[in-house]
Amino acid sequence: MRILGIDPGSRITGYGCIDADADSGSMTIVEAGVLRLGGSGATVPLGRRLVELDTDYGELLERLAPERVAMEGLFAHYKHPATAIVMGHARGVLVLGAARLRIQLVEFKPAQIKVAVTGSGRASKDQMQSAVQSIFGLAEPPTPADVADALGAAVCAARRLATEAIG
Amino acid sequence: MRILGIDPGSRITGYGCIDADADSGSMTIVEAGVLRLGGSGATVPLGRRLVELDTDYGELLERLAPERVAMEGLFAHYKHPATAIVMGHARGVLVLGAARLRIQLVEFKPAQIKVAVTGSGRASKDQMQSAVQSIFGLAEPPTPADVADALGAAVCAARRLATEAIG
Repeated sequence: MRILGIDPGSRITGYGCIDADADSGSMTIVEAGVLRLGGSGATVPLGRRLVELDTDYGELLERLAPERVAMEGLFAHYKHPATAIVMGHARGVLVLGAARLRIQLVEFKPAQIKVAVTGSGRASKDQMQSAVQSIFGLAEPPTPADVADALGAAVCAARRLATEAIG
Repeated sequence: MRILGIDPGSRITGYGCIDADADSGSMTIVEAGVLRLGGSGATVPLGRRLVELDTDYGELLERLAPERVAMEGLFAHYKHPATAIVMGHARGVLVLGAARLRIQLVEFKPAQIKVAVTGSGRASKDQMQSAVQSIFGLAEPPTPADVADALGAAVCAARRLATEAIG
């Protein structure tokens, strides 16, 4: 199954698309990278930036054709409410885009993703990046950390797939 | 000029569309009401709810054809980060919808809207509702308060229009 993990942020959204074989447990990266929303201090109005994000994301969904989109649920705590709200704008556009195409969205708690990737619910960003590097046999840890987090969400969805009830 | 005021929330979004004549200062209500997103505890997935909001809002923009959309900027403080983030999702969809149609978005601080409507930046919800009732000569104060706040944002945009530089 093809799974697109995304890690929405107020400035950049990491994405990582994988092909996961539920029977063999194998996972391979199809494509990973970032979509940029621009910062809250950018001169381009938020509306135009959301249109760009919506367009870029729509093209990504069309090109990669994932069967599921995986991301963190709304459990995160933010120090800055304004940043959280802008992240919410981006996340709204991303959730909307998948729902429009009727792609199933699966959400996980941050600790669930960390456990699925590293074995520990308290893994640091560095540990997440190293674990993702190891799982996919990459020459370097994925950067920025948002890409590793996005791939982590996809890995969590793949692990769940491997244990999904068949009836 | 036709102005659509909106007051995005995590459950319902108030809207109020007015026709404002910059020369005479007259303002009349075209239509006002609410769009529902459903609560965070609803059984319908957030994605489907955002698709509904996007569809309803798109129909509203098409039917009312406002030249500007007015709303509060990102200055509000929220007690519950999760509520703020869900509100951000709705707001993202609403900002995106207007930007897609290249409708100009104008944002104001909450106190600016209160001053424009009531003369005081510290007006209560009741005072906002009474002032909006008075401005438009309504038989009753608009309810829920979200509708009054949406009309308030439109009034603020209309007042600004009345003092806009011509060159």
